[in-house]
Amino acid sequence: MSLICTGTIGIDTIHAPTGNVDRVLGGSCTYFCAAASFFSPVRMVAAVGGDFPQEFRKVLESFKGVDLAGLETRPNSKTFAWGGKYLQNMNSRETLFTELGVLAEDPPKVPESFAESKFVFLANSHPGVQMNLLSQIKGKPLVVADTMDLWINIAKDQLLVLLRKVDGLVLNYDEAELLTGKSNSVSAARHILEMGPRFVVVKKGEHGALIAHREGIAALPAYPAEVVIDPTGAGDSFAGGMMGALASSSSGDAGSFDSVRRSLVAGTIVASFNIEAFSLDRLKTLTRREIDDRIAQYAAMVRI
Amino acid sequence: MSLICTGTIGIDTIHAPTGNVDRVLGGSCTYFCAAASFFSPVRMVAAVGGDFPQEFRKVLESFKGVDLAGLETRPNSKTFAWGGKYLQNMNSRETLFTELGVLAEDPPKVPESFAESKFVFLANSHPGVQMNLLSQIKGKPLVVADTMDLWINIAKDQLLVLLRKVDGLVLNYDEAELLTGKSNSVSAARHILEMGPRFVVVKKGEHGALIAHREGIAALPAYPAEVVIDPTGAGDSFAGGMMGALASSSSGDAGSFDSVRRSLVAGTIVASFNIEAFSLDRLKTLTRREIDDRIAQYAAMVRI
Repeated sequence: MSLICTGTIGIDTIHAPTGNVDRVLGGSCTYFCAAASFFSPVRMVAAVGGDFPQEFRKVLESFKGVDLAGLETRPNSKTFAWGGKYLQNMNSRETLFTELGVLAEDPPKVPESFAESKFVFLANSHPGVQMNLLSQIKGKPLVVADTMDLWINIAKDQLLVLLRKVDGLVLNYDEAELLTGKSNSVSAARHILEMGPRFVVVKKGEHGALIAHREGIAALPAYPAEVVIDPTGAGDSFAGGMMGALASSSSGDAGSFDSVRRSLVAGTIVASFNIEAFSLDRLKTLTRREIDDRIAQYAAMVRI
Repeated sequence: MSLICTGTIGIDTIHAPTGNVDRVLGGSCTYFCAAASFFSPVRMVAAVGGDFPQEFRKVLESFKGVDLAGLETRPNSKTFAWGGKYLQNMNSRETLFTELGVLAEDPPKVPESFAESKFVFLANSHPGVQMNLLSQIKGKPLVVADTMDLWINIAKDQLLVLLRKVDGLVLNYDEAELLTGKSNSVSAARHILEMGPRFVVVKKGEHGALIAHREGIAALPAYPAEVVIDPTGAGDSFAGGMMGALASSSSGDAGSFDSVRRSLVAGTIVASFNIEAFSLDRLKTLTRREIDDRIAQYAAMVRI
């Protein structure tokens, strides 16, 4: 079924204990769409500037399932650029710089041909921008949003409005705590359900994920990864795998507890590949066969 | 099969956001044996002072599966006492005071009638003391040890000697990192396998546990608990449930990957009950039926 993602395309500079890369392809929409494309066709809505390298465009095109009709190029603007530094344990990072570029302008338009999408992922952005993008989608899609501490701190009211319009929310552990004031992740997730969504996925990085759904609670460990080169995009590729799996599911109710829970396995495994290399380097060569093999391996590891 | 635990019995004072308790029953051996007793008879080896309250002894006696023949009472000594304070999120704690009492004296003797135990758990203690206790056990038992940052820092050489004598090690996430210098939990656990043990269980509290075994890797989320009154004894009751389940297993090789992995479910669930009340208050009323019900619930939550 038709899946659409709105978010950023970025040019990332990353310093990590595992190496440094300068101006590589990144961004939430990039990671999401690449990851989702292993499971379902996916429509990208994002903007880049005139400086966006041709080679990056070719990388995006190399993911056959990604429809780039919603990729706006603004010749007189600059592409969003971000620099980050990972600390020794790879779990915490500092922002080195942020050049908003096109992100400081109007959000990209959802092409008319994308307006009928059945599955919508609103990657992390100002909740006002997310609402704007959502308003361009027709019908009654299944909508999942990402958010971050910045918006909880400076735009909580607008975030609360958005939460009444979405089916699902994905956010980090500490963000769930910040949003609810509850330090227990189950309590925090349940509290978020009262704000509107039918389900909440609390991402805990290497500790896996917790899902609170109106129909139940589930927990998944992360794939026990030893090769962690670059965690950038882990959350977005997790969401991409999840939404791609949801969009491809034949279940009558894609937002049901069982459906969402199953989709998290896809997200967990795609994310585990993504962190094995910088930028899209691992996803570029990844095959569905490798994904399926690791899903089977993971299933054996977590069976009880 | 016969299971023995050596460790501490303590009188705990606990300050937590959920309440304060003064001089309640605690200690690693207490929590371990109470938890293990739901699955297997268990032999306790520990020492208390003349100040040990009669009511605490009655609590120990109330766990029918616990054999107290190895509980030494030293009339002129004092029972180990500990005070701790949990911070707002219940995940970190500070020690308020430690009164070593009998812990500063010779370790308790393993009674002759216990020397033939087939399963040995060496609760957290100086590795020299753990070696001393282990040397009193005859035959070729399956031995699992706990340890802590203190011993890694001040008695690492003795700990490394101990590790060559044990089948399994349980320790916290940050302790695995401290012991190995590796910040990835899978890498750290694998590294510990090279130090001797056949398996390592890395405890991550509310994030579950990772097991690295010579035969494979597995990960388990914690039971998603909303009621967390007192985390004291969570690790010891986890180990107790695990060892109790191992000792009761009919598997030919109790230390096999499958056997150890299955036993972690028992540990996870008993620990999830233990944290619902201060001291032994929840384990005192707990039934095997409640445990089995929650195991079924947990299995449904984590199935993928």
